Amino acid sequence: MTESPTGADGVAFNDPSYRAAVIDLLGVIAYGEISAFERLAEDAKLAPTLEDKLDLAMMASAEMANVQRLRERLERLDADPFAAMQPFREAIDGFHEHTAPSDWLEGLVKAYVGDGLARDFYREIAAFLDVETRDLILGAMDRTAHSAFVVERVRQAIEADHRVGGRLALWGRRLMGEALSQAQRVAADRDALSALLAGGVDRPGMDLAALGRMFNRLTERHAARMADLGLAH
Amino acid sequence: MTESPTGADGVAFNDPSYRAAVIDLLGVIAYGEISAFERLAEDAKLAPTLEDKLDLAMMASAEMANVQRLRERLERLDADPFAAMQPFREAIDGFHEHTAPSDWLEGLVKAYVGDGLARDFYREIAAFLDVETRDLILGAMDRTAHSAFVVERVRQAIEADHRVGGRLALWGRRLMGEALSQAQRVAADRDALSALLAGGVDRPGMDLAALGRMFNRLTERHAARMADLGLAH
Repeated sequence: MTESPTGADGVAFNDPSYRAAVIDLLGVIAYGEISAFERLAEDAKLAPTLEDKLDLAMMASAEMANVQRLRERLERLDADPFAAMQPFREAIDGFHEHTAPSDWLEGLVKAYVGDGLARDFYREIAAFLDVETRDLILGAMDRTAHSAFVVERVRQAIEADHRVGGRLALWGRRLMGEALSQAQRVAADRDALSALLAGGVDRPGMDLAALGRMFNRLTERHAARMADLGLAH
Repeated sequence: MTESPTGADGVAFNDPSYRAAVIDLLGVIAYGEISAFERLAEDAKLAPTLEDKLDLAMMASAEMANVQRLRERLERLDADPFAAMQPFREAIDGFHEHTAPSDWLEGLVKAYVGDGLARDFYREIAAFLDVETRDLILGAMDRTAHSAFVVERVRQAIEADHRVGGRLALWGRRLMGEALSQAQRVAADRDALSALLAGGVDRPGMDLAALGRMFNRLTERHAARMADLGLAH
């Protein structure tokens, strides 16, 4: 009866509020990846060995391959990629300013936890998108999946000094808290993006209960990642 | 009559001094790319706009895709990639310490000139290598060819303020001088690498006259790049 956003591109994008939401989403992901690149490259300086540095630099580079794709997609939607990123700079820069790692291990945990959170969140949102946008975003999330090396390094560090675990567990909680507070800021500012999650006349969405369940899933997966690292949540 | 290094891999690598030279070469290129990544990511901070920052960050990321390939090749030669890079860290770090850009335009010129010089030099050396190593190196040089955007930016800056041209021309000369002085340091230290250029019983090489011609070619191409940028050499 009605067109779903998973139908042909043109149909979904006939709805200006859907188009605005997708532009917002691509903009926030793109700026998130540019700033992740910058921060990972910066944190790589803290690496104790060249091999460690290389692992973080590889993660940083994977972010940039995605930026190019997101930029092209924005241009195909007749949107200025930099204008699309602009509204999210303050929140994302704010996140990084408030979570500057003070040492190599904090940098590793931030890379792992931040990468995982972003991936989970965008995967959740991808469910509400047209096929082409969804594939682009899921592909981008797959390409940045280079953070597995972190697990071994963090576990080794805790084994060598158990006090490290308590400090990093607090750090992980702080990262999650800061991410949520910046996400709320964005949600309050960007009506189209919030409307995308809420759904529309001819688009399925989430009611408050479903939104609550989504946040539960994100929190549970964060806790699972902390456990992977050997950190109590 | 004799085997050329362009023949089957195994044959060229039967010569331990050829193998040592190739390991050196892959090591120096890999470390050069890691440190180019670091410096480009650092210099990207000086970018006046997000779009400029993105261009330099893309260049930085292209370096890392190569590092992965060089690393795998070193491992297939039973060499420890990090041990292979180690002998070149001092010279390459020295180059960057002595050529830290003081502003965005110096960073751009360094990216363009440094990238071009490295590309020319490794292309020259590639002529003396077995097919597989040569293809790897030429492919790596192609993948990092993202510096064309620099030309327009530097020319615009000179148009806006002619004094900029004089300052950047001096800067270009300093980059070339520093690169040559560090290259000499490496050549003096690494016998296998020098021997590769000099050739061997069953391998063609360069005599002093040919070496002189190669340096002339490198200098001419550097001058051509400076001219591209609108800078008198």
